[in-house]
Amino acid sequence: MSDQCVFCGIVSGDVPGVKVAEDEATFAFMDINPASDGHLLVVPKRHSKDLFEIPADDLTAVTLAAQRVAKAAAGVFGADGVNLLNCCGADAWQSVFHFHLHVIPRYTDKAKDRLVLPWKPDVPGDLDAIADLGRRVTAALG
Amino acid sequence: MSDQCVFCGIVSGDVPGVKVAEDEATFAFMDINPASDGHLLVVPKRHSKDLFEIPADDLTAVTLAAQRVAKAAAGVFGADGVNLLNCCGADAWQSVFHFHLHVIPRYTDKAKDRLVLPWKPDVPGDLDAIADLGRRVTAALG
Repeated sequence: MSDQCVFCGIVSGDVPGVKVAEDEATFAFMDINPASDGHLLVVPKRHSKDLFEIPADDLTAVTLAAQRVAKAAAGVFGADGVNLLNCCGADAWQSVFHFHLHVIPRYTDKAKDRLVLPWKPDVPGDLDAIADLGRRVTAALG
Repeated sequence: MSDQCVFCGIVSGDVPGVKVAEDEATFAFMDINPASDGHLLVVPKRHSKDLFEIPADDLTAVTLAAQRVAKAAAGVFGADGVNLLNCCGADAWQSVFHFHLHVIPRYTDKAKDRLVLPWKPDVPGDLDAIADLGRRVTAALG
């Protein structure tokens, strides 16, 4: 719990929020600046700043809750797909520093869906450079 | 296992890939069309099509592996943040139909980072409409 954290406030009820679901460890509520119709957030009730800090049990609980909520939202809204997104760090678009997973229903109908592709996924990189980066991560993992 | 699935082929070694790490249930390898330097994918070894289909144990294992790989990658590359992204369905930008979690290191230095923000996160939606959508998900969750 952080007194300064707006998501801790939503979980506790001290800050207004549109609650969708909760369980022992997680809380799901609507994003009020939605990227698409039905855009939700799932957070752990216990405060963790980000992906690097969240304990494994809370990360697991949030992910499984997000899967449940994504299925329910896609069903009721007739969505054509869903994105899960976590932003860790200001340079990764994190703006509230309480771990959260975006659940974003997606639609063929662009009137309901304001997302644009964040990168060009069909542009090949340099394979030697990629292999070198991969070896460095493997080495860091021990 | 699907004979037609390129990610099953990478896991089995029948298709070339830049492996970074593996454990009993998961396999991590480099994305060859990277959105940023060090862009990785984590998949379950068992074939699941997408977020709606993947069993809870594989989803948990992939998420925890992604957290470990994200920390290692951010450390070795000096990244300023990380995104985790899952795309479920063609309308959500899924192009390989074997569940995968993108691990995308992010950098202040845009020479290493080719992502653009996929939506405008500071544009408020209609609060009454949002609350109505939220109630429908809650009802669907039972």
